[in-house]
Amino acid sequence: MYRTRTCGELRLSDVNQVVALAGWVQKNRKMGGMSFIDIRDRYGITQLVFNQESNLELCEQANKLGREFVIQVTGTVKERSSKNKNIETGDVEIIVSDLKLLNASEVPPFTIDDETDGGDELRMQYRYLDLRRAVVRKNLELRHKMAFETRRFLDAQNFMEVETPVLIKSTPEGARDFVVPSRMNPGEFYALPQSPQLFKQLLMVSGFDRYFQIAKCFRDEDLRADRQPEFTQIDCEMSFVEQEDVLNIFEGLAKHLFSTIKGVDIQGDFPRMTWADGMKYYGSDKPDIRFEMKFVELKDLTEGKNFVVFDSAEYVGGICAEGCASFTRKQLDELTDFVKRPQIGAKGMVYVRCEADGTYKSSVDKFYSQEDLKAWGERFGAKSGDLILILSGETEKAQKQLCELRLEMGSRLGLRDKNVFAPLWIVDFPLFEWDADSNRFFAMHHPFTSPKPEDIPLLDTAPGKVRANAYDMVINGVELGGGSIRIHDSALQKRMFELLGFTDEQAQYQFGFLMDAFKYGAPPHGGLAFGLDRFVSLFAGLDSIRDCIAFPKNNSGRDVMNDAPSRIDQAQLDELSLVLNLKEQK
Amino acid sequence: MYRTRTCGELRLSDVNQVVALAGWVQKNRKMGGMSFIDIRDRYGITQLVFNQESNLELCEQANKLGREFVIQVTGTVKERSSKNKNIETGDVEIIVSDLKLLNASEVPPFTIDDETDGGDELRMQYRYLDLRRAVVRKNLELRHKMAFETRRFLDAQNFMEVETPVLIKSTPEGARDFVVPSRMNPGEFYALPQSPQLFKQLLMVSGFDRYFQIAKCFRDEDLRADRQPEFTQIDCEMSFVEQEDVLNIFEGLAKHLFSTIKGVDIQGDFPRMTWADGMKYYGSDKPDIRFEMKFVELKDLTEGKNFVVFDSAEYVGGICAEGCASFTRKQLDELTDFVKRPQIGAKGMVYVRCEADGTYKSSVDKFYSQEDLKAWGERFGAKSGDLILILSGETEKAQKQLCELRLEMGSRLGLRDKNVFAPLWIVDFPLFEWDADSNRFFAMHHPFTSPKPEDIPLLDTAPGKVRANAYDMVINGVELGGGSIRIHDSALQKRMFELLGFTDEQAQYQFGFLMDAFKYGAPPHGGLAFGLDRFVSLFAGLDSIRDCIAFPKNNSGRDVMNDAPSRIDQAQLDELSLVLNLKEQK
Repeated sequence: MYRTRTCGELRLSDVNQVVALAGWVQKNRKMGGMSFIDIRDRYGITQLVFNQESNLELCEQANKLGREFVIQVTGTVKERSSKNKNIETGDVEIIVSDLKLLNASEVPPFTIDDETDGGDELRMQYRYLDLRRAVVRKNLELRHKMAFETRRFLDAQNFMEVETPVLIKSTPEGARDFVVPSRMNPGEFYALPQSPQLFKQLLMVSGFDRYFQIAKCFRDEDLRADRQPEFTQIDCEMSFVEQEDVLNIFEGLAKHLFSTIKGVDIQGDFPRMTWADGMKYYGSDKPDIRFEMKFVELKDLTEGKNFVVFDSAEYVGGICAEGCASFTRKQLDELTDFVKRPQIGAKGMVYVRCEADGTYKSSVDKFYSQEDLKAWGERFGAKSGDLILILSGETEKAQKQLCELRLEMGSRLGLRDKNVFAPLWIVDFPLFEWDADSNRFFAMHHPFTSPKPEDIPLLDTAPGKVRANAYDMVINGVELGGGSIRIHDSALQKRMFELLGFTDEQAQYQFGFLMDAFKYGAPPHGGLAFGLDRFVSLFAGLDSIRDCIAFPKNNSGRDVMNDAPSRIDQAQLDELSLVLNLKEQK
Repeated sequence: MYRTRTCGELRLSDVNQVVALAGWVQKNRKMGGMSFIDIRDRYGITQLVFNQESNLELCEQANKLGREFVIQVTGTVKERSSKNKNIETGDVEIIVSDLKLLNASEVPPFTIDDETDGGDELRMQYRYLDLRRAVVRKNLELRHKMAFETRRFLDAQNFMEVETPVLIKSTPEGARDFVVPSRMNPGEFYALPQSPQLFKQLLMVSGFDRYFQIAKCFRDEDLRADRQPEFTQIDCEMSFVEQEDVLNIFEGLAKHLFSTIKGVDIQGDFPRMTWADGMKYYGSDKPDIRFEMKFVELKDLTEGKNFVVFDSAEYVGGICAEGCASFTRKQLDELTDFVKRPQIGAKGMVYVRCEADGTYKSSVDKFYSQEDLKAWGERFGAKSGDLILILSGETEKAQKQLCELRLEMGSRLGLRDKNVFAPLWIVDFPLFEWDADSNRFFAMHHPFTSPKPEDIPLLDTAPGKVRANAYDMVINGVELGGGSIRIHDSALQKRMFELLGFTDEQAQYQFGFLMDAFKYGAPPHGGLAFGLDRFVSLFAGLDSIRDCIAFPKNNSGRDVMNDAPSRIDQAQLDELSLVLNLKEQK
């Protein structure tokens, strides 16, 4: 028995008890004839006291302890004379009677503090020390709690967690698979799953009715801050359901997590927005609706005044920033520079100040009269003191640029508080996306997504207008999850494959075993998958999913701590019937 | 809304309610002017009634439905005149007023019944249909419940579930890794984890204190009935613990599962047996102690009577089967044949019948007097009517053979009831195993296993005698899990590597990042991992773990349902800088 209590639990009510603690030396300081050590474990920090007068030897032993040494102490809990309100054990300290060094430590390469002096790279190299910092560990604790509460909720709703295989068949469509050579089947490869999609649909054919799995998924893509080669999905599927049933269940799950984890009770139903409205009013299929500032279209009001930029644009639209007429020239220039950044790509920005005296001051006063500008302002519902920002161009592009501008304004105005949560459902996605390069339609979600029944006639006449029974849950501008009702009718599925340009052979080769399964009584079904990493990041207020993953990889897919991936033995390559074919230059 | 109720929940109290059900046609039969359909979903089976007189059209529609068609019905719950006591809904039936065909089905390749007419291979090929059978689905439901209750128990004990990476560094020691070529790092490979061992020890260095994970693990080994290339572990690790603390926690987990899942309350502590006693009394490190029949050694009593077989044997020992003196010649021959099977490899078997009149009848009466046999009988504590079975040979081999004989006798005598559970801990494993071929010691568990502190002096003088702080939980002869206290002292770890014949370079290359981590204040720690597949199989009374895995692979590592592994495109091989090197003959 190394300890009787943890370093986070002692209180005034424990005074005079003899306790044993074990943990790491957080801090070690001498004051007069006393030595103080802060001992730390996962649960907290407790102050240890050594008195030179009463036990010189013990005190000298204590003075030799360095940062991160592992110790075990026995002592008596006493009330502190100067209490520390910043820590939960701050009312007490331990008068140590016995000290045992369990393990020494070299000086760590960075300080084990919330505000560390270690840079990103160093912290990733010594991730096991980085994880000692409470700020990082708390993200992992949060992740555990969210996964556990997810399971508790879904279990209570009769969902069964089923483990689907990790070594599966490679399918060439979609993102790139990671593959695993099979020693027992030379020349053949398994793939790691990009998602359990096909298996969860098979489980519905099996009559499992309600399935879920918190599942590792894999994509061999070039990486960004919010992408990892392995990531985790809360993957769900239900039988005998319509879209409404699925939305209700998973809105329930989200509310359960908000309530049990964040203590936030979200009132009423999540608002729903069609994909078309998302694009029209926010230029995005994942709008951040913590603040309004909806797009207003102006094209009709701007025409015929010889302002070529607007006249030649397919789209003219803007946002109205309340109370921002006071923005300085410098601030406006910054915003113009912002939208002109190559990542955003606007040619310029037009502004209109709604002055206190009821007049308008704009960057296009040369072309538009006060009368004109007043009409614009009225359409925005702008008041004196507001600022209107306008972009123009090809519709889709201009809307995306305006979306970025809107988010930037939201950030500048403090309207994107990480402690405010604004969830919504985006519904009625288009079923297809037209790809001009390959001159064909692609499935916006995947080829099993069901069209809305009322749009089925459009499949023949205007496929681009067919809406899908597909939905995304969006919170604070982050797409947390999405899904769809699946096609369970084989005639309709066949029609879909035709529209997507699959030959029968291709469809059979790629999805044959699912198509075969559907011949034996597939129930109507649908589902959804949440990105667990994103959900945790949202709750933790993180900017990157990396910080809620215990051992993440860098942008080259490397684990810099244990230096993976790495070379393997020739013997192992031989066993796998593989030869490396490395180019001279990497 | 496809249904208002499920097919498993209607009772007499629901009579006269109008309900909607959806599910599969289990059975369809006509009797007089009535048609009856059993409709099935995950939750049960309900009888539907169609009356030709009251609705001819509906009845005819119903008559056309084949097995496994998916339907939706609306109707009124009525009390049945002839109740079916075999199903929970057997008191009621539905008088159907509306029927909708949701999907047709081809005739399934085998019957969807607990006792199916489908063979193993066919069932695996159509696993999605096999999973429709209640007997199979129940195994998966059990698995879900066991995983959930495991999480509930460990969460309540302050364990955090942490996901460790699946794409990790390959280490050449131990079983064969599956590897994953890295596109972004040409010529380099990730490995899939054989267990999260190194990561969980790193998490202890990180101060996570109590970690668990229900984790997929991977081993590229030749497969047997109880092995799969991917399997699932309940993986746990704790800091600041001694062996006693670990055993207590996980004995608690096992009891929790027995109580919540099986309704079995196991009284008192699990018995503990040293590894040495396991070998001495049961010839096994995973003894089935549902029945006694301990080994008794006879060598000293058998010597000097000119029976060369015993005289030349290192070991002579046997078991006493109560009340089996009546075994016939044929039964005894069967047992002799059993131990002589090549998998067991004994040369022969000696028996002694303890006759009702107090005399002894043995197969070695030529060599041993009644006096001699009486002395044997006394050592066994044999009574009239008992049967003594004796094997001899090289100690270890003979004990293993005797172990098989004992289990066979247990089975024949009905002493291995699947509903009786006899758990125990095996403790004090040897730290090392001597490998005569390579003339070196190997770690019996792994190189991080701590010796028992009192045995540390033996490391220098008699390494083979050093016992480890390692332990296995065994139930009914199945090793469900095991673990150890780890070495946290780097000097001792270095000594271990020396004894195992590692050079500093080798140790650094293979375990460098763990060794490095241990320099920064590693706490004393230890842990354990359960095999979830085995645990579920034990609870479900299965003979193979395959039946509690949704989509298992066959003995060649193939998923025969979706035909994985498979060839991949040349383009993908090129991207991975790989060339196939297939031999002419496979």
